[in-house]
Amino acid sequence: MPSGIGRTTWVIAEGYIPGASTGPEPEMLSHETACVVNIGDTDAHVTVTLYFTDREPVGPYRFVVPARRTLHQRFNDFQEPEPVPRDTPYASVIQSDVPVVVQHTRLDSRQPPHALITTTAYPV
Amino acid sequence: MPSGIGRTTWVIAEGYIPGASTGPEPEMLSHETACVVNIGDTDAHVTVTLYFTDREPVGPYRFVVPARRTLHQRFNDFQEPEPVPRDTPYASVIQSDVPVVVQHTRLDSRQPPHALITTTAYPV
Amino acid sequence: MPSGIGRTTWVIAEGYIPGASTGPEPEMLSHETACVVNIGDTDAHVTVTLYFTDREPVGPYRFVVPARRTLHQRFNDFQEPEPVPRDTPYASVIQSDVPVVVQHTRLDSRQPPHALITTTAYPV
Amino acid sequence: MPSGIGRTTWVIAEGYIPGASTGPEPEMLSHETACVVNIGDTDAHVTVTLYFTDREPVGPYRFVVPARRTLHQRFNDFQEPEPVPRDTPYASVIQSDVPVVVQHTRLDSRQPPHALITTTAYPV
Repeated sequence: MPSGIGRTTWVIAEGYIPGASTGPEPEMLSHETACVVNIGDTDAHVTVTLYFTDREPVGPYRFVVPARRTLHQRFNDFQEPEPVPRDTPYASVIQSDVPVVVQHTRLDSRQPPHALITTTAYPV
Repeated sequence: MPSGIGRTTWVIAEGYIPGASTGPEPEMLSHETACVVNIGDTDAHVTVTLYFTDREPVGPYRFVVPARRTLHQRFNDFQEPEPVPRDTPYASVIQSDVPVVVQHTRLDSRQPPHALITTTAYPV
Repeated sequence: MPSGIGRTTWVIAEGYIPGASTGPEPEMLSHETACVVNIGDTDAHVTVTLYFTDREPVGPYRFVVPARRTLHQRFNDFQEPEPVPRDTPYASVIQSDVPVVVQHTRLDSRQPPHALITTTAYPV
Repeated sequence: MPSGIGRTTWVIAEGYIPGASTGPEPEMLSHETACVVNIGDTDAHVTVTLYFTDREPVGPYRFVVPARRTLHQRFNDFQEPEPVPRDTPYASVIQSDVPVVVQHTRLDSRQPPHALITTTAYPV
C-alpha cells in the first residue's frame, strides 16, 4: 500500500446541522460528518476551521486520525473552542500534517425518514 | 491558513428548482444553493451565468462573499437580471475575482419528507 | 466567458434505472440523467457508450448540445442503437468533440417520496 | 475509445452498511457499492483494503472487472478474508492493475422509503 495517500488541505463549502431530529440517537440524530482516512504509517494531526456568513472563522478544532485508521468525525461533537451552532450555514477547511482523504456526509432527520447527502471534499 | 484556496471558475451542470414545496418556509422551500467559501483575506466578487436548453445564457447575477466568510446563495433568491424559472433545467458557471470553493446542493420538498443532493462543483 | 470550459471525456461508473416508478410522469418517472453544459461557441457533438456486467459495450448514442446551452439528457430516452435496460447495472463514457462539463443525477421513485443522488462525473 | 481510462488507486473515506433494512431483497437491502468500470481491453484485477476506527486494516478483498465491463461490487457481499461488519464506520482503498473509474453508492433502507447517496471516489 503506498504511504501518504491524499492531500493535506481539504474544503467542504456546504455545512449545516439541522436543529431538529427524529428517531433513535445517536444513529438518527441529524448530523454532519467529515470522514477522514489516514492510509499512511504516521498519525495525522487534523485541525478544522469553520467559516460563517457574518462573523470571523472559528477554530482550530483538533483531532487525531491514527496511522492506518479512519475517523468519521461528527461536527456535532466539536466542543472546543465552541460548539457548532445548529440551523446555521457554515463551511469548513480541514488541514492535516500528513496526507489524508476527506468525504463529507450529512444525515437530516428533521422529517422521517431521514435524507442523506455525500460528496468527496475539495482537495486543495 | 493559506490564502487564496480554490479556483476562480466553477461549473454546476445540473440545475433544477422544483416549482412545488411542502413544509415551513424558508427552510423547507424547494431550493438550489451554490455554497461558496472565501478563505482568503480579500472580498470575492462573484458572478453567476445561467445556461438553458433553448435560449441564450442569462446573467451575470452578482454577489459578494466577504473575506473569511461563506455564503450559501440560493438560486431562488436571484432577481437581477431576472428570476430563475422553476421546473426548468439549467446549468451555472460561477466566476470569482479571487479563488473560492463551490459546492452544489438541492432540497426538493415536492413530496414530504424532502430529498437532498450535493456535490463539489467542477473546478475549472 | 472563457470558451471551451471542461473536458472532452467523462465517466459515470454508477448507472441504474429503476424499473418501477410512482407519481406523475415525466417528472416523477424513475430516471437517470447526464447533465451536459456546453459553455463554448461551438456545438458539442456528444457520444455515449454504455458498459455492462456481462456483455459488450453498447453505443454510440448520439446527441448535440448547442453552443451556450445545457442538455439534461435522460438515459431513459435513448432509443438507438437500443433502449437502456431497466433494473440493470451499467456505466457510461461520455465523449464530446469540444469541452463540456458533465454531472450525473438519478431520481428513484420506486417508493414515494422519491430519492435523489448526484455527483460531478469523473473528468478524464 | 481510448484505452486505460481512469486511475489505479481510488479512495472512499465514507463507509457504513446499515444493519437494518426494509423492503424486498436484494434490491432494497441496505448496502454499499463500489461501482467500477474498466474501459480498457485488459481485465482489471482489483483489490480492496478496508480501514477501521479501532483496529488494523482488513484485506485484500479481490475481484476482477473484465475488459470492457462494469462491476457494481457490494461491500455486503465480501466474504474473504472476513465479512464487512454492519453499523460500523469504515473507509476503503481500491487498487487495480489497470486504470479504472470508481463511484461510491449507498442505499439505506432502515426506514422506508430508502435514502441514496453517491459520489465519484477520490482518484489518487
